[in-house]
Amino acid sequence: MYKTHNCGELRISHDGNTVILSGWVHRVRSLGAMTFLDLRDRFGKTQLVFDEAIDKDLLTKAADLGREFVIRIEGVVRERSSKNDKIPTGYVEVVVQRLDILNPSEVPPFTIEDDTDGGEELRMQYRYLDIRRDSVQSKLLFRSKVAQAVRQLLSAQHFTEVETPVLVKSTPEGARDFVVPSRLNQGSFYALPQSPQTFKQLLMVGGLDRYFQIVKCFRDEDLRADRQPEFTQIDCELSFVDRDDILEIFETFTKTLFSSVLDVQLEDFQRMPYEEAIEKYGSDKPDLRFDMPIHEMKSLLPQGGLSILDLAESNGALLVKGGNDYTRKQIDALTDWVKRPQIGAKGLIYIRCNDDGSTKSSVDKFYNEEAREAIKAGLGGEPGDLILIMAGDYGVVRKQLGALRIHLGEQRGLVDPSVFKPLWVVDFPLLEWDEEAGRFFSMHHPFTTPSPSSLEHLESTDPKTLENLTADAYDLVINGVEIGGGSIRIAQRSLQERVFRLLGFTDEEAQDQFGFLLNAFRYGAPPHGGIALGFDRLVALMDGSNSIRDYIAFPKNNQARDVMLDAPSRIDNEACATLGISVHEAEE
Amino acid sequence: MYKTHNCGELRISHDGNTVILSGWVHRVRSLGAMTFLDLRDRFGKTQLVFDEAIDKDLLTKAADLGREFVIRIEGVVRERSSKNDKIPTGYVEVVVQRLDILNPSEVPPFTIEDDTDGGEELRMQYRYLDIRRDSVQSKLLFRSKVAQAVRQLLSAQHFTEVETPVLVKSTPEGARDFVVPSRLNQGSFYALPQSPQTFKQLLMVGGLDRYFQIVKCFRDEDLRADRQPEFTQIDCELSFVDRDDILEIFETFTKTLFSSVLDVQLEDFQRMPYEEAIEKYGSDKPDLRFDMPIHEMKSLLPQGGLSILDLAESNGALLVKGGNDYTRKQIDALTDWVKRPQIGAKGLIYIRCNDDGSTKSSVDKFYNEEAREAIKAGLGGEPGDLILIMAGDYGVVRKQLGALRIHLGEQRGLVDPSVFKPLWVVDFPLLEWDEEAGRFFSMHHPFTTPSPSSLEHLESTDPKTLENLTADAYDLVINGVEIGGGSIRIAQRSLQERVFRLLGFTDEEAQDQFGFLLNAFRYGAPPHGGIALGFDRLVALMDGSNSIRDYIAFPKNNQARDVMLDAPSRIDNEACATLGISVHEAEE
Repeated sequence: MYKTHNCGELRISHDGNTVILSGWVHRVRSLGAMTFLDLRDRFGKTQLVFDEAIDKDLLTKAADLGREFVIRIEGVVRERSSKNDKIPTGYVEVVVQRLDILNPSEVPPFTIEDDTDGGEELRMQYRYLDIRRDSVQSKLLFRSKVAQAVRQLLSAQHFTEVETPVLVKSTPEGARDFVVPSRLNQGSFYALPQSPQTFKQLLMVGGLDRYFQIVKCFRDEDLRADRQPEFTQIDCELSFVDRDDILEIFETFTKTLFSSVLDVQLEDFQRMPYEEAIEKYGSDKPDLRFDMPIHEMKSLLPQGGLSILDLAESNGALLVKGGNDYTRKQIDALTDWVKRPQIGAKGLIYIRCNDDGSTKSSVDKFYNEEAREAIKAGLGGEPGDLILIMAGDYGVVRKQLGALRIHLGEQRGLVDPSVFKPLWVVDFPLLEWDEEAGRFFSMHHPFTTPSPSSLEHLESTDPKTLENLTADAYDLVINGVEIGGGSIRIAQRSLQERVFRLLGFTDEEAQDQFGFLLNAFRYGAPPHGGIALGFDRLVALMDGSNSIRDYIAFPKNNQARDVMLDAPSRIDNEACATLGISVHEAEE
Repeated sequence: MYKTHNCGELRISHDGNTVILSGWVHRVRSLGAMTFLDLRDRFGKTQLVFDEAIDKDLLTKAADLGREFVIRIEGVVRERSSKNDKIPTGYVEVVVQRLDILNPSEVPPFTIEDDTDGGEELRMQYRYLDIRRDSVQSKLLFRSKVAQAVRQLLSAQHFTEVETPVLVKSTPEGARDFVVPSRLNQGSFYALPQSPQTFKQLLMVGGLDRYFQIVKCFRDEDLRADRQPEFTQIDCELSFVDRDDILEIFETFTKTLFSSVLDVQLEDFQRMPYEEAIEKYGSDKPDLRFDMPIHEMKSLLPQGGLSILDLAESNGALLVKGGNDYTRKQIDALTDWVKRPQIGAKGLIYIRCNDDGSTKSSVDKFYNEEAREAIKAGLGGEPGDLILIMAGDYGVVRKQLGALRIHLGEQRGLVDPSVFKPLWVVDFPLLEWDEEAGRFFSMHHPFTTPSPSSLEHLESTDPKTLENLTADAYDLVINGVEIGGGSIRIAQRSLQERVFRLLGFTDEEAQDQFGFLLNAFRYGAPPHGGIALGFDRLVALMDGSNSIRDYIAFPKNNQARDVMLDAPSRIDNEACATLGISVHEAEE
């Protein structure tokens, strides 16, 4: 027997008990006649005592123990003389009577401490040691806890968990597929699913009513920071629902999840049209933990001032409350920040609202005190505030000011990390024009239904009209993070065919790629819709982190490599031949 | 709003309520002035009434409804005049006041009934319609129910759910991998995991203590009936446990699962060494729902009789209780059955135990009454029984008699389908000799630890000694079905290296393929072991079926194709070029 208790379990009530513990040697302090040792497992740490007065040989044996040795001990629990309030086992220690070394350990390449000396790359290479650290292990335990809660909540709401296939059909629409050459069907390939989208719709056609799955999805993208080629989503679909049904069901779901896992009560979710989110926050995923909306000032600014403002489609402004505390140097730094290529602004105009009620701006030459006062009044500025202005095309200005707003929020400590501000962004555009491809793409995906008000304009040939079509699509945003999104789906064959044509599919292409879905719609598809929540991201957000990688047991790096396994790797020519493929020689 | 209630919900207590229902038209019976319609959703069926006396136009509209139309109705619940005891909603009907056709349906290619007229292939092509059938849908719901129960039971026992990667490293050991060409690392391939074996071991090295996952695994095998290229297993691993700990934990788990899901109380699991299973049942997965063990008769048969028996290594027999009721023709049929190539026996000898106490055999010429009587007595035969004898090499005879035993059990109705007989098969051989490859393979996998008693013989160079080594491995068998298996793993680097050498790995190959694991063992690996249960198979068994395909929402056929999706399929040359591979032209 390896243990009667785990290392987080013993309390003062166990005083006098003979126990068996197993675990890792976390720390050893030798005090001559006594050695104290912290024994660690995933449940906690327990102090062991080797006492010369009790067993001299054991004390000698304990002297050989190094960090991360795996040991088994037998001993008697006793009350500690100097207690530790900080850990649950801090009132007791175990006086060791027998010691077995189960497995020795070399000195690990970094310390197994929250505050480790190991860098990212080293820790990833030895991920199994990284996971021994409390700070990493607790994240994996948290993820498991959230997963169980999610499944229990959805099951209780009559969602049926269905596993959809991983070896599916490749379709050119959307992101790039990972493909799997078939040995039994040479020359053909499976694809790994980017999402179970069509399967869950088919389950609705199949009458399953409510479906869910916590499921791996795959995208062969050029990786950006914090993107993984394989990721996990909470995937859901419901029949006989409209948009508001889904928003209500998943608002309740999210609230219950936060309250059951975190004991946090979320307030009611605001619903904001996509257009308003862009207009006021310059983003389709606004962080509402602080205010500071974008103001359109075109009507506030007198014409005949600065021509760059006069000529611009949009003059947008942020009112920074108390922002007049910025020095000139700090404002210059903000200007530099927006001029970086990532933001790409031409410049930044400021108006200081001085304590004496006067104003001072970077464009005093063009706007006199009266004009500046009108702007200040129009924005509701008060002494001590700062007004920041940018000009340009509407969409560009919104995006730039949106980024600046987030930057200011962080810089000025306006973001309370302990607060969660969820909202639904609704009424997304149906289509996005892609200049390079010269065609429309779906903003969400081709199965999203147009909003009822957009249905009548679907036959239009006017690009402007088509661009303004909205979809019955929605995103769940919390603290500026897109947690998930979904839509009501098309359930009519003719409407689905029409949308495929809008996306430039010939009828043959549509039939070839999505014939199974179009066929399914012949036989009584129910109205249906759904949502997919990014599970990695949700877990990180709930735990107060913005790094999803920390919540993945074995993540890949930015080159999509697993540095621990050393994968991907070469396979031999025979294996390739069996699959009916050959590998091109590298041309470097 | 699409519904106030589902189609399985209304009871006599709802009498007089105005309700909204949505669902599929299951059946329509027109009686002139009245039309009755069964409306179906996944929760049940509700009878709707269209009454000329109430609304003539509605009755006309209802006449246009075809099977599988999706409709929404509003109406009033009333007590039925002729009640139906067989369904929960059978006491009420809904008098329709409003009817909306949400989606029409063409006539489905087969009837949506338990007893459908659609063949297997047609149903797979239209799987979304197949799933509408109660008998299929209930299997998917059952699977979901079992999955939730499994996760709850394991979570309650401190198992942490961890998602392991799907894009992993290819290793030549074991079955054939599916591989995924990497675009970002051209010329390299990921593999899809055959199981998360090494990851779960690394999680134990990482101190996670107990891990589980319900996880998709992949094997690129030539498919046999009821094998799928992707399948699901309940994957578990535990630290600081020995074999008996694991058997006890998973015996309790299995009992609790059966009792919570099926309300079935399983008896204690027998433990049977592999050798005994082969000797007595000719199988490492014996079906213990009926007895009829194999007897070795070598010592019972007098020498100098039939030379084929004299010369054979083994003379095995089955005592078929009451089997003398077989006619000569039936016994001939049994002989033909064992002579089929699948069994490959040369013949079958019988001894009838007549009611008058005499015996009559197919080999009376060689064995007189006295000899036959001795055999009968030795096997415990009684009047009315039948003795069936086969001769040959020990292993071959065991296998053939094992198959015959199962055949007889089924033929004679000895198998009670409502009974579950679980057992642990233990003490498996560590190694299997592969004549073709000229080397040993692991019977379980290379990470299985030899039994304590075998450890000392590990350095032997005698093939016979090596073949007799046993492993700390075990299988869970229920009703003759292998539900899962596992082992205590090797946790010592030197022992792991030794086993790799036994399997013919050079040190370089071992390091190249499993270096990450060998490295992990440097840093204090805990004693650990685990088990993996075939989830598809477990669910089918629990539900009283032996077809796993019925419990998979979108299964592949025997050519590993998804006939609904038409996958796998061709991808274009550009996609291949992006991946740095080319496809060989078919040489047909």
